Amino acid sequence: DDAAETATGDDVLAEFRAQARDLHERLVHEHGVFVAEFLGATGSGKTTLVERLIERAPADERIGVIVGDVAGDDDASRYRDHGVAVTNVTTGKECHLDPGLIEDALADFDLHALDTLYVENVGNMVCPADFPLGAQLRVLVVSTTEGDDVVRKHPLLFQACDAAVVNKADLADAVGADIDRMAADVADVAPGLDLFRTSARDGDGVEPLASFLDGVRADGH
Amino acid sequence: DDAAETATGDDVLAEFRAQARDLHERLVHEHGVFVAEFLGATGSGKTTLVERLIERAPADERIGVIVGDVAGDDDASRYRDHGVAVTNVTTGKECHLDPGLIEDALADFDLHALDTLYVENVGNMVCPADFPLGAQLRVLVVSTTEGDDVVRKHPLLFQACDAAVVNKADLADAVGADIDRMAADVADVAPGLDLFRTSARDGDGVEPLASFLDGVRADGH
Ligand SMILES: Nc1nc2c(ncn2[C@@H]2O[C@H](COP(=O)(O)OP(=O)(O)OP(=O)(O)O)[C@@H](O)[C@H]2O)c(=O)[nH]1
Ligand SMILES: Nc1nc2c(ncn2[C@@H]2O[C@H](COP(=O)(O)OP(=O)(O)OP(=O)(O)O)[C@@H](O)[C@H]2O)c(=O)[nH]1
Ligand SMILES: [Mg+2]
Ligand SMILES: [Mg+2]
Ligand SMILES: [Zn+2]
Ligand SMILES: [Zn+2]
Repeated sequence: DDAAETATGDDVLAEFRAQARDLHERLVHEHGVFVAEFLGATGSGKTTLVERLIERAPADERIGVIVGDVAGDDDASRYRDHGVAVTNVTTGKECHLDPGLIEDALADFDLHALDTLYVENVGNMVCPADFPLGAQLRVLVVSTTEGDDVVRKHPLLFQACDAAVVNKADLADAVGADIDRMAADVADVAPGLDLFRTSARDGDGVEPLASFLDGVRADGH
Repeated sequence: DDAAETATGDDVLAEFRAQARDLHERLVHEHGVFVAEFLGATGSGKTTLVERLIERAPADERIGVIVGDVAGDDDASRYRDHGVAVTNVTTGKECHLDPGLIEDALADFDLHALDTLYVENVGNMVCPADFPLGAQLRVLVVSTTEGDDVVRKHPLLFQACDAAVVNKADLADAVGADIDRMAADVADVAPGLDLFRTSARDGDGVEPLASFLDGVRADGH
């Protein structure tokens, strides 16, 4: 993203980082909301994965979703079908969400009546790295169908996240992807990063990720 | 891309457009090189598709490739295995190529000894729209595995391109994607845009795209 290159860009980024810290303080610490961001390549399976998490949540868990897309409300309407509170953020020419957009979207939610907030970023493997959104963790979702070189090609984004998912494990053979190689690359570019393998469409492998998220939720920060 | 929003950004964009026109003039009109850009989502199959085009080229066609990636040289080494001249452009924090990067990369090529130049952009569905690179045409490659909503979600990029490919047709069923719906969306967001359906891994559907490109090559501008 060009903003990262200019002096103006640096100021803007510092301002965004401060705004993200404020969001985190307000959402997580003041209101006790569990906030998780999902980001990753276009079509990697972010929405499908979050749908699976929503489906397995306790019936009394009050869930909200802020979903960013360049255009349209396809993802928002998928989430709405699950009966959760959804705000759609259409970014237009922007290739990522920023904390200002999250701040604006929060006006739609009653934070006292929210247990969980999922934030789905715009599909993009580069620019979101520089724009934390105040979540407790950033979950990077890539998939086998992007090719098993996708980790090596995007080290900075893996380093900017707190957990990673290799989704569409069921399609690894169909594209000739070696998931073990992807895991080795993750260990290489982001040592210690928690990594999950899922087939979100049929729900395979979602449970270990859900347990991991529950642990972060229990930690409360 | 944030650059598009600011006044500075507008200047920069105008400068880049002028530079792209100069590149086009020099490459296409002065040197008679056929220049085609391939862009699209991360892992949509850009490299695989261009590999198929290289394989079917006449033995005496002198081919060059400029390939952009955030990190590493995976794609460059794949192209090199085909015996073509390759320059790898590592963009680091940038999410797209720009005409300045192409200009620099051209120093590696003897333009008098080049018939075809393929340019593969960084995998990204947003930012490349604003940065033409001087090619005769921009070919947008998406794939079924991104979901059949990928066209509706990215109208601006389709409008900025001269042809589109829905790749991984062989995996449409595996992800529940309706290719006809994608084609209808293309007709809707970018009426008249030439659209091709391919399974680049096994080469299915590449021939009609290749014929189309040969037509543009014959046109010479
Ligand atoms: N076979 C298979 N298909 C999957 C899997 N996960 C997602 N899909 C399919 O992949 C396509 C994209 O999934 P989405 O969940 O919309 O992906 P996304 O990351 O939210 O996409 P964007 O928001 O547009 O970037 C859809 O057709 C899904 O049905 C999986 O694990 N296996
Ligand atoms: N089944 C199937 N797999 C494909 C097809 N096209 C590409 N692939 C696979 O998809 C993965 C990504 O393909 P690439 O050609 O590297 O995609 P790309 O668009 O160049 O990727 P980036 O340059 O990283 O953005 C690889 O594992 C390919 O083998 C296809 O038509 N069908
Ligand atoms: Mg989505
Ligand atoms: Mg490639
Ligand atoms: Zn905290
Ligand atoms: Zn011309």
